[in-house]
Amino acid sequence: MHESYRVAIVGATGAVGNTMLGLLEERTFPVGSLKLLASHRSAGEILTFKGAHIEIEELTHDSFEDVDLVFSSAGASVSREFIPTAVEKGALVIDNTSAFRMHDDIPLVVPEVNMDAAQKHNGLIANPNCSTIQMMVALKPIYDAVGIKRIVVSTYQSVSGKSGQAVNELVLQTTEALEGKPITLDRFPHQMAFNVAFDWTFTDSGDNEEELKMIKETHKILSDDSIGVSATTVRVPVFFAHSEYIKVETKKKLTQAEAL
Amino acid sequence: MHESYRVAIVGATGAVGNTMLGLLEERTFPVGSLKLLASHRSAGEILTFKGAHIEIEELTHDSFEDVDLVFSSAGASVSREFIPTAVEKGALVIDNTSAFRMHDDIPLVVPEVNMDAAQKHNGLIANPNCSTIQMMVALKPIYDAVGIKRIVVSTYQSVSGKSGQAVNELVLQTTEALEGKPITLDRFPHQMAFNVAFDWTFTDSGDNEEELKMIKETHKILSDDSIGVSATTVRVPVFFAHSEYIKVETKKKLTQAEAL
Repeated sequence: MHESYRVAIVGATGAVGNTMLGLLEERTFPVGSLKLLASHRSAGEILTFKGAHIEIEELTHDSFEDVDLVFSSAGASVSREFIPTAVEKGALVIDNTSAFRMHDDIPLVVPEVNMDAAQKHNGLIANPNCSTIQMMVALKPIYDAVGIKRIVVSTYQSVSGKSGQAVNELVLQTTEALEGKPITLDRFPHQMAFNVAFDWTFTDSGDNEEELKMIKETHKILSDDSIGVSATTVRVPVFFAHSEYIKVETKKKLTQAEAL
Repeated sequence: MHESYRVAIVGATGAVGNTMLGLLEERTFPVGSLKLLASHRSAGEILTFKGAHIEIEELTHDSFEDVDLVFSSAGASVSREFIPTAVEKGALVIDNTSAFRMHDDIPLVVPEVNMDAAQKHNGLIANPNCSTIQMMVALKPIYDAVGIKRIVVSTYQSVSGKSGQAVNELVLQTTEALEGKPITLDRFPHQMAFNVAFDWTFTDSGDNEEELKMIKETHKILSDDSIGVSATTVRVPVFFAHSEYIKVETKKKLTQAEAL
C-alpha cells in the first residue's frame, strides 16, 4: 500500500464524478495529488476539495502522467478512447462505465460480493451498472446459503441516474405540471413529472439495454450463467436512489426469517 | 333489452362512482331513473347528471326497490353487506369490488375478453381488479393466437386507484417537498411525492394482495390455471392511469410484428 495516491477523476463535473470527489473527502482517502479531468467545455472551472480550489483540466491522452489511481465516469465512449492510455501509463483504473464490463480479462467487481476478482486485474477494474450492484449486494448471502435458480427483478430508477441536469429538469417539469404550463423537454424525450417512462433502447432480444446489463453482469459477478434473470427497468419521477423489487426462486428452501 | 334502465350507483361520491356517473352521461346510456347511493356521511349532497341535480341517498337494504341495474364501487365490505340484497330484489349488479370476484358461480368479466361468461350470471357480474383488466385486454389476442406459458408483469399504479383524496394528497405532498416543508401524511402511510411505495398487505405466499388478485383473476378470466404469473405491483407518484410492463412467454413462436 502506498501512503498516499496520486488520484485522477475522469468526468469530475458530472453527477457521479462530483459524488466521487465528495466521498474521497468524506472518507479521508489518502489523496497525495488530485487531477480533475473533464471535457474541453468544463476545462477551467473550479471545484473544491478539502478547502483547496482545483481547476478542471481538459482530458487528453497526456492526462495520466504521474497518476496512480483513476476513477472514471464520463460515459462509455470517453472510457473507450482514454482509459487504455491510462492503463498503459501504469495507473490502476476503476471504470464506472459500461465500456469494459463484459470483457473476459477485466474483473467486474462489487466489493461486498466478489472482491477476490479484483486481485486479477491488469490495470483496470470495472464497476457494474447501478441496478446490478444493489441487487448483488442483497442477493449474494442468499446465493451462498441456498443457491439461486431464478431472479425476477423490477427496478424503479431515479432521474439522478441519468444526470444532474435531469434532476433539475424534474423539478422544473413538476412545477410546470402543477401550474398547468407546457412541459419543458430537454434531457427527457417525454414528460417525466408524474409519469413513468422507458429510458433505454430496446435490443433485438426484447430486453432493453439496461435489462441486458443486469442479466449479463449478474452472470459474470456470480460466475454463474445458469441463473435465470428477468429484469424489468423503468425510470420514475424520483430524484435520488434507485429502488428494486426482487423475487427470487432459490435452489434449496429458505424461510423468510433466514433470508432476513 | 329494456328501452331504459332504472340505475343505481353505489359509492356515487367516490372517484370511481363519479367516473361511472360521467360515463353514463357521456355515452348517453338509456337511464330511466337514477339513484345515487353513498354512506350516511355523504347523504344529502348533490351531484349533477345531464343538468339535473340529484340528491345522494344513504345506502340501506331498502335502496334497491325499483332498480334494474346497480353499479357498485364502495369497497368490498360494503358490497358484501348490501349487494346480496340488491340481487334478491331482482336487480342486475355489476360489482367493481373484490368481494365476489373469486366466487365460482359469479362471472368475472372483461367485456373485450370473456363477454360470454357474463351470460351465465345469477344477478351479479364481478369486474376484475384494475391492473388485471388492462393486462387481459392486451394479452387475450396473443393468448388466442399462440397460447401463453408465463407472464411476468410489473405495474406502476397511479394514486387515483387509491382514492380522490389520495390524488389531492399527492398534489399537496409534491408542493411541500419542492418547498422543503414537512410532508403531510393522511391517506398515505409514507411520502408518495417523488417516491415509489408498496401499498398493499403482503400475504403468506410472499405476494401482496394486489399481486395475488392479478394471478388468480388471470386464471379465472382465461379459464386457464396453467399460466405462470409473476406480478410485481407498486404505487408511483402519478395522478391517473396505471402503467404495466408485461413480458410474456408464448407456447408457440410469435414475431413482434404478429404480436403488434
